[in-house]
Amino acid sequence: MTRPDNRAVDQLRQITFTPNVAPHATGSVLVSFGDTRVICACTVEEDVPRWMKHQKVKGGWLTAEYNMLPYSTLDRKQRDITRGKIDGRSSEIQRLIGRSIRAVVDLKLLGPRTLWIDCDVLQADGGTRTASITGGCIAAAIAINKLMAAGKLKTTPLKQLVAAVSAGVYQGTPVLDLNYPEDKDASVDFNVVMTEDLNFVELQGSGEEATFSPEEMMGMLELSKKGVQEIVQLQKAAISAADKPDTDALTDLAAAFGQK
Amino acid sequence: MTRPDNRAVDQLRQITFTPNVAPHATGSVLVSFGDTRVICACTVEEDVPRWMKHQKVKGGWLTAEYNMLPYSTLDRKQRDITRGKIDGRSSEIQRLIGRSIRAVVDLKLLGPRTLWIDCDVLQADGGTRTASITGGCIAAAIAINKLMAAGKLKTTPLKQLVAAVSAGVYQGTPVLDLNYPEDKDASVDFNVVMTEDLNFVELQGSGEEATFSPEEMMGMLELSKKGVQEIVQLQKAAISAADKPDTDALTDLAAAFGQK
Amino acid sequence: MTRPDNRAVDQLRQITFTPNVAPHATGSVLVSFGDTRVICACTVEEDVPRWMKHQKVKGGWLTAEYNMLPYSTLDRKQRDITRGKIDGRSSEIQRLIGRSIRAVVDLKLLGPRTLWIDCDVLQADGGTRTASITGGCIAAAIAINKLMAAGKLKTTPLKQLVAAVSAGVYQGTPVLDLNYPEDKDASVDFNVVMTEDLNFVELQGSGEEATFSPEEMMGMLELSKKGVQEIVQLQKAAISAADKPDTDALTDLAAAFGQK
Amino acid sequence: MTRPDNRAVDQLRQITFTPNVAPHATGSVLVSFGDTRVICACTVEEDVPRWMKHQKVKGGWLTAEYNMLPYSTLDRKQRDITRGKIDGRSSEIQRLIGRSIRAVVDLKLLGPRTLWIDCDVLQADGGTRTASITGGCIAAAIAINKLMAAGKLKTTPLKQLVAAVSAGVYQGTPVLDLNYPEDKDASVDFNVVMTEDLNFVELQGSGEEATFSPEEMMGMLELSKKGVQEIVQLQKAAISAADKPDTDALTDLAAAFGQK
Amino acid sequence: MTRPDNRAVDQLRQITFTPNVAPHATGSVLVSFGDTRVICACTVEEDVPRWMKHQKVKGGWLTAEYNMLPYSTLDRKQRDITRGKIDGRSSEIQRLIGRSIRAVVDLKLLGPRTLWIDCDVLQADGGTRTASITGGCIAAAIAINKLMAAGKLKTTPLKQLVAAVSAGVYQGTPVLDLNYPEDKDASVDFNVVMTEDLNFVELQGSGEEATFSPEEMMGMLELSKKGVQEIVQLQKAAISAADKPDTDALTDLAAAFGQK
Amino acid sequence: MTRPDNRAVDQLRQITFTPNVAPHATGSVLVSFGDTRVICACTVEEDVPRWMKHQKVKGGWLTAEYNMLPYSTLDRKQRDITRGKIDGRSSEIQRLIGRSIRAVVDLKLLGPRTLWIDCDVLQADGGTRTASITGGCIAAAIAINKLMAAGKLKTTPLKQLVAAVSAGVYQGTPVLDLNYPEDKDASVDFNVVMTEDLNFVELQGSGEEATFSPEEMMGMLELSKKGVQEIVQLQKAAISAADKPDTDALTDLAAAFGQK
Repeated sequence: MTRPDNRAVDQLRQITFTPNVAPHATGSVLVSFGDTRVICACTVEEDVPRWMKHQKVKGGWLTAEYNMLPYSTLDRKQRDITRGKIDGRSSEIQRLIGRSIRAVVDLKLLGPRTLWIDCDVLQADGGTRTASITGGCIAAAIAINKLMAAGKLKTTPLKQLVAAVSAGVYQGTPVLDLNYPEDKDASVDFNVVMTEDLNFVELQGSGEEATFSPEEMMGMLELSKKGVQEIVQLQKAAISAADKPDTDALTDLAAAFGQK
Repeated sequence: MTRPDNRAVDQLRQITFTPNVAPHATGSVLVSFGDTRVICACTVEEDVPRWMKHQKVKGGWLTAEYNMLPYSTLDRKQRDITRGKIDGRSSEIQRLIGRSIRAVVDLKLLGPRTLWIDCDVLQADGGTRTASITGGCIAAAIAINKLMAAGKLKTTPLKQLVAAVSAGVYQGTPVLDLNYPEDKDASVDFNVVMTEDLNFVELQGSGEEATFSPEEMMGMLELSKKGVQEIVQLQKAAISAADKPDTDALTDLAAAFGQK
Repeated sequence: MTRPDNRAVDQLRQITFTPNVAPHATGSVLVSFGDTRVICACTVEEDVPRWMKHQKVKGGWLTAEYNMLPYSTLDRKQRDITRGKIDGRSSEIQRLIGRSIRAVVDLKLLGPRTLWIDCDVLQADGGTRTASITGGCIAAAIAINKLMAAGKLKTTPLKQLVAAVSAGVYQGTPVLDLNYPEDKDASVDFNVVMTEDLNFVELQGSGEEATFSPEEMMGMLELSKKGVQEIVQLQKAAISAADKPDTDALTDLAAAFGQK
Repeated sequence: MTRPDNRAVDQLRQITFTPNVAPHATGSVLVSFGDTRVICACTVEEDVPRWMKHQKVKGGWLTAEYNMLPYSTLDRKQRDITRGKIDGRSSEIQRLIGRSIRAVVDLKLLGPRTLWIDCDVLQADGGTRTASITGGCIAAAIAINKLMAAGKLKTTPLKQLVAAVSAGVYQGTPVLDLNYPEDKDASVDFNVVMTEDLNFVELQGSGEEATFSPEEMMGMLELSKKGVQEIVQLQKAAISAADKPDTDALTDLAAAFGQK
Repeated sequence: MTRPDNRAVDQLRQITFTPNVAPHATGSVLVSFGDTRVICACTVEEDVPRWMKHQKVKGGWLTAEYNMLPYSTLDRKQRDITRGKIDGRSSEIQRLIGRSIRAVVDLKLLGPRTLWIDCDVLQADGGTRTASITGGCIAAAIAINKLMAAGKLKTTPLKQLVAAVSAGVYQGTPVLDLNYPEDKDASVDFNVVMTEDLNFVELQGSGEEATFSPEEMMGMLELSKKGVQEIVQLQKAAISAADKPDTDALTDLAAAFGQK
Repeated sequence: MTRPDNRAVDQLRQITFTPNVAPHATGSVLVSFGDTRVICACTVEEDVPRWMKHQKVKGGWLTAEYNMLPYSTLDRKQRDITRGKIDGRSSEIQRLIGRSIRAVVDLKLLGPRTLWIDCDVLQADGGTRTASITGGCIAAAIAINKLMAAGKLKTTPLKQLVAAVSAGVYQGTPVLDLNYPEDKDASVDFNVVMTEDLNFVELQGSGEEATFSPEEMMGMLELSKKGVQEIVQLQKAAISAADKPDTDALTDLAAAFGQK
């Protein structure tokens, strides 16, 4: 079995993070997993949702919105507002992103504010949901660092990082981080969200039109664990770089957009 | 650790299936997992969705809708149409139900028709999505048997049965088939959809506000497998009973509603 | 003239009421008028609508929602939320149900709470709106009895019972309580809502595509009056039974579902 | 008992019909019942609804839309599109208008076209639904006359006229044609739609918050019959006038608007 | 070049204003520019929008809604609520009407109330947006005069009048106040909103499918200025007449509707 | 008078165009006018809108959608789909973008296909609509060049370029290309769309809360003309660069994002 882009079965695509692409957001990053590109932004609102006030829940909230830009797919994707309703798949993904990042944020420590995580897909080539979680965590980390630097937070509410990766069974073999051509042919769609201390946050495996065996599942879990470990290292470097002066930003950004 | 209702960690709640509760549907069943009750119905439409015609996809389709009736919860749940949009959680669950049952249906063999699986929750006490998948499969089986009996199908498109069950970590211990009081306190929400030959169809584990370890995950998988095996036996009995004369239906139905 | 099911012109279909089908509601009942089955539930919300607070109206409120489940008709009926708007006919019927039951409830005595009457049609065979009013009144009565038993109400706000029945002109003769085959062929659709002291609450006669004479109207009124008198006796028995221990519930329920 | 505007119990308000207020419609009329003013227009579309084509129903269709202009009430009424959904009451009224006028139109004779009856309330002072039916029938008659004159119809599909009027019990006495101050205090809202040969088309009596006796009902029916007879004479004059040269139109129009 | 209705290039259509057509509004007027007729109403709400309270903005607000009645066009125009969304063009026009009239109203002096300007097009023959602004200003002036007369305002917030007119290039020549046949053939759609002291409030020129030269632009501006000057005189007369006894209203109204 | 960023009154902000930011679109460009950044993409659909088929209009179509990303403003902007309706201002702007670019495209020559121009604002600092038109024209030009290169078009349907710029009166002086701090204080919002041969396509001047004199208008027109001339030169360079190999793209892109 050879993968379409000749990667090893346990090899991630090239991953880059370009911070501050949306300067009006408190934190933002352009994430690339190969040809998949997602703009992730974290905006701070100094208020909490109505239900929290109503139920007198203490602390803050974090919520996510996921959206595919119309030109992110090979055939233009109609905007939700034109269709008149939110895409079922998008709704499901944004709930997943929100749950995943909330698992590593201490909402009590966050105080009475809301972190909005916006993920807009610029180019879709497989793995947009895992790229969104991975990038959303970076955007949140940058935003929280700014709140710390501004003295609005004393203790960081970010307990640890969270990252996500996909796996699947391609031509009978479990492989890591599927791109679109692999995804289309794979018999399983497997997404794993893990913390940097390698516990699970979310685990979703689906074999639409097909099933998968316990052995295949174990293989995909193993690959995912390896992938998450590598991604977490890249996240840490990106968060650290975002706080430094901007001198290298140009090169990073160029690298992110340049591989076309 | 003692479970609120004194069940063993690997013990299912009492499960009953009362067929034909909605006589205008082609197949229907009232499913109970303890105090969780769902009306599952399968209606046959002799047409396929527009996208199948447009893309010239052969065969049929199966789609699901999931809905909580307003009086199914302890506080009345507003209807979707009153809120003006479908509930995000419902949308996610109905996509899951559809994918799960499609995994065991040969859509080519089904011919140019659509099976609508409707799941309306009459009473919610934990595990409504797994009860819906389990009952939806029964409703589909009954409907397909009617199509066979009417000569509209020569070969059954139902390849095997599919069943679903939940598991979770309750007070530090993995347990099977959580009811609502357990679910509220559990640190993980784990749903497993498996075929009768014990392959996976869907696997969803989520530790909102928390994480779970690889060991906990393995424990929950083991329990789920045991649970699915038992449920499949009950499904087979119910499908077989639905095709027999109605003499026992009264007793079954009374049993289903009687445990209040 | 012979009616399709051989009933006398002034004969009701078999009517049964099975209480407590939706145990999370404060009061609930499964109503059958022949093959028409409706789940009626009454849920208590300890709050009043915004407009009452705004206009400083004292007392409580009662509102109804009516919905046909997708599998209640011979051809599957699309859900309102899928169509994106509430069905005009449903909207009209739920306004009628609300007005009818409010006519016998002293909203001042109810106190600052809302009674939600939900009517979900499980099987439609003519007369779903009259079955809903009749059953909605029972569900409200059961709920109010529970509020009384719990000491939340000192005096019952239910002044008397309300019941509803349909009539029509079938093959030139006024007949009582039309089922679907009769309804389709009848030239008038006549619905009467009366109190147990035999005053009118609502009177709706419509001769779509046709007209009806004053004599036909008087005949249908006479039949309706007789029907309401009989129904009220059955309502009283059902409300009384719902408050007794559950020993006979199994048999009642079986009888309700059993006539398939 | 004295009525607020000193009318006799069986006396209609001043009724006027000003034809051709909306010249782009095929037929139009400004209806006044006292201070209630409604613009009724009939537009012809040379097509039938999709469901008629789909079900291969022969002939034409007639449908109505009812709308209160925002400045028709003493407090501004928000537009439906701003609220995002059609007003339940409006939806019910427009279904009533449609059914009422269809009862006197032979849809087969109409041929494959749709008559749209639009009723926009300019000023609401009680009885807008009965004014709409009465005026909608005139607009339809004018439009049908134009189709006849243009040779598009050989035989008129308008079998006879239809008119509507309200009645109620005001301070214990049945009275005819309630204005808003009476309507607010009346214990019953009674609307009668009759043909010119004095058969019933629709009959709607509602005693919200109250009930009404059989004797009161008979009294209101008697008044309504008298009212309809008088209104039909005025309708005939208006339809006839609309076909004559416009010389008197100015005076009619001035009279219609002038009583302020 | 001859204009279809033989007007001079700088000649307005016959313009009439009939006040008080919607007596429940605080101010109202039926505007005619030739065969274009718009009902303009101003309703006073003793409250301000939520955003003003939230942002603690002092004073009042003025907002406009524009709507084409279904029978205003030669082919029936579907209502917005039936389509489920507001017409893009209508939304743009109502924003323009609101901005234009706010430019001459001192919102601080208006006090904490909202002026709603409703413009419903009864007949569309070109220039409905300019007729709406022109008539909306009259309706606002009448309403403000009533507030002054009632002692609710001490100083008028209406600083001066605002009027609007269209121009275009028809068969190569700039012309004033296009009717529909001219509008359809014109290569530019030019709308000018000016105050009575001849400053600009809004200027919108659009050459869909085409472009226009600086010289043509100057020609249209010159015509528009002349048109606005004439219209302002007519507005003043109408506002003044609306405050006088109604003796001449009949004649005015008849004249407005009479030219069919 | 000194401008906040010390520009001369007739000086544009730094303008950059980075092509191919959304590689799945047929043509795309990231436009920056100072700190305003818009992603403009042109996607080709090999089909035309339903109304063109219905009305048998020959040729193709071009339509635009404009959207502010939630993190483009200093306070997070709610997505349209969350609010449930399209933003009135966005709707107006996307109609303007569509009209403007259609003015320079020969739709007949385009053939039976649709060009979708999507403009998503990444960062808003004044002038997003003019940046969108300017960038949308570049995206369209790149896409049309690709259609030409692929042999799908023989003659280019792009007749000439179109560009847009804003002007305003800031502290009493007409100035060119306002950024957000100027825009907030300016008394006029003036947008000019011109072709490269310096004819007008659209002209929109609005003095919300204020008016502007004929002299100020002439001043703003003069500035706009100068601005458009300079912008057209930059557009030409960008279109030409987009067709060359990608060697310089990295630097361009870095420059575009780098000025933060």
